[in-house]
Amino acid sequence: MAPKPHSIDIVVSEVGPRDGLQSISRIMPTAAKIGWIKALAAAGLSEIEVGSFVSPKRLPQMADTGEVVRATRALAGVDILALVPNLHGAQDAIAAGAHTLTMPVSASREHSLKNIGVTPEEAVAKVAEVCALRDSLPAGARPGVEVGISTAFGCTLEGAVPEDRVLTLAVALARAGVQSIGLSDTSGYGNPAQVRRLFTRLKAEIGPLAGAGHFHNTRGQGLANVVAALEAGVTTFDASQGGLGGCPYAPGATGNIVTEDLVFMLEAMGLRTGIDIAGLVAARELVKAALPGEPLYGHIPDAGLPKGFTPAGGAT
Amino acid sequence: MAPKPHSIDIVVSEVGPRDGLQSISRIMPTAAKIGWIKALAAAGLSEIEVGSFVSPKRLPQMADTGEVVRATRALAGVDILALVPNLHGAQDAIAAGAHTLTMPVSASREHSLKNIGVTPEEAVAKVAEVCALRDSLPAGARPGVEVGISTAFGCTLEGAVPEDRVLTLAVALARAGVQSIGLSDTSGYGNPAQVRRLFTRLKAEIGPLAGAGHFHNTRGQGLANVVAALEAGVTTFDASQGGLGGCPYAPGATGNIVTEDLVFMLEAMGLRTGIDIAGLVAARELVKAALPGEPLYGHIPDAGLPKGFTPAGGAT
Repeated sequence: MAPKPHSIDIVVSEVGPRDGLQSISRIMPTAAKIGWIKALAAAGLSEIEVGSFVSPKRLPQMADTGEVVRATRALAGVDILALVPNLHGAQDAIAAGAHTLTMPVSASREHSLKNIGVTPEEAVAKVAEVCALRDSLPAGARPGVEVGISTAFGCTLEGAVPEDRVLTLAVALARAGVQSIGLSDTSGYGNPAQVRRLFTRLKAEIGPLAGAGHFHNTRGQGLANVVAALEAGVTTFDASQGGLGGCPYAPGATGNIVTEDLVFMLEAMGLRTGIDIAGLVAARELVKAALPGEPLYGHIPDAGLPKGFTPAGGAT
Repeated sequence: MAPKPHSIDIVVSEVGPRDGLQSISRIMPTAAKIGWIKALAAAGLSEIEVGSFVSPKRLPQMADTGEVVRATRALAGVDILALVPNLHGAQDAIAAGAHTLTMPVSASREHSLKNIGVTPEEAVAKVAEVCALRDSLPAGARPGVEVGISTAFGCTLEGAVPEDRVLTLAVALARAGVQSIGLSDTSGYGNPAQVRRLFTRLKAEIGPLAGAGHFHNTRGQGLANVVAALEAGVTTFDASQGGLGGCPYAPGATGNIVTEDLVFMLEAMGLRTGIDIAGLVAARELVKAALPGEPLYGHIPDAGLPKGFTPAGGAT
């Protein structure tokens, strides 16, 4: 959410410490989380979603999010994001010092009710409350507020989700005061033609508020969807180191796209990410050590870089 | 190589029975190969590369290629392709009744010498000999001749391969009489920006002779490269069922892109392939039965189709 530095073309937003870790049942120890986030920052990540301010009864993996935010918020050049479901969570996140709050809103009514217990319209109202809280703070103390609209490309419960409904929701969120509104392929249903079309429409509707592409690789289409989104002018992509939190019902299928493979693709295409691939692979080793045996995905760590490879950002 | 029927937008050319099977050490029994190829044809594949006319000492997996061609050449609506390294192989392929001959030519001198024992220029001369043989046959008995230029996007031995060299080779092959000249990412080095650029240049140089995109998924970029090639106007893509013949040094990394995932992506994008995904998954079961324990790749067979999915070609 922080402005993109001039030295990079594409922001890769790491969601592993939140999205990845909350999708697995094991709990990564707090010190390991903090070490991992610091290694990601050292590799050049400029946006990291570090946890969720939700009930520790519901998601014990996220119970230490306040401590994690406090330990990482001063990392130079890194925007620390935290997910908050409501005003109470937002207050906790602000108290801990998160730079940016992300809030869950789903385009599918059934998914919304099942996932966060409210309708999409009620979710927008909660977002508006958090934006009002933000605006009540002194100028220097205001966090960013952003939303990635879930199930924007289809829903495992409802099937196809009408594109007009997604865009109506995006406009409502913009009116509520959200500063960045992205589209999330929660179900791994998206295809490149749909991604190009929907992000182009999103940009036409809300202009510079159009935010990140969040793609899953459940059906192997993750990076293909990134290529399509790049054509539509998307400049921020969520990804998870090692594809952590892979889809439990499809062995070998990652959930989120894999940060390592995404960064390789972008740098190979001549798009600067500011991220050092070797540093990223080093950070992956910390995940392996903290969660022994947990499946990690991605091709680059095994296949290595092409002979003589030069990233867009210069020698690796 | 046969003209693309009006009812389809994109030709998916199945290379598993040749490229896949020659990459693994086990030998699929002839009857199983023929059954598999017939199942692929029943699923709607219109191009299948069924084997290589090479020395059985070098590739015992391909020793029965003549028998496989004879058993499948009469399948309705299916172009039967066979790889031939030289004039002798071409004579055998023509005697067996192959519809189209594919010949190996590599843009990398080192790869060419190591893989087929000749320089790229010598390989072009061999192709010219085969084109002359084709032209000496009666009009109704002439096979097609096509080439996918190997290491077009980089080489594990040489590193980067100059684009001008690839295009010079393509022009030389067009002059030699080749009817379809594609580009192959043998090493899995290609990225979408490079793919779009090089196929655009290829089309500018040789127009309608520009042929298939052949991508590997070694670094997870396979389908992303297909999206870029589609933008450059490519309408034929090679793929291998189950990614058969996956890259031995990178566990989990397929070699060729996976037919199942490619067909899903294209159909989801609204591009008709003429291929039934359920039929494709049924054909995959024959590979599993004939090669028990052999690793097969791809997401669609595990993850299934999206709820309510309708392929471009109509209800599945």
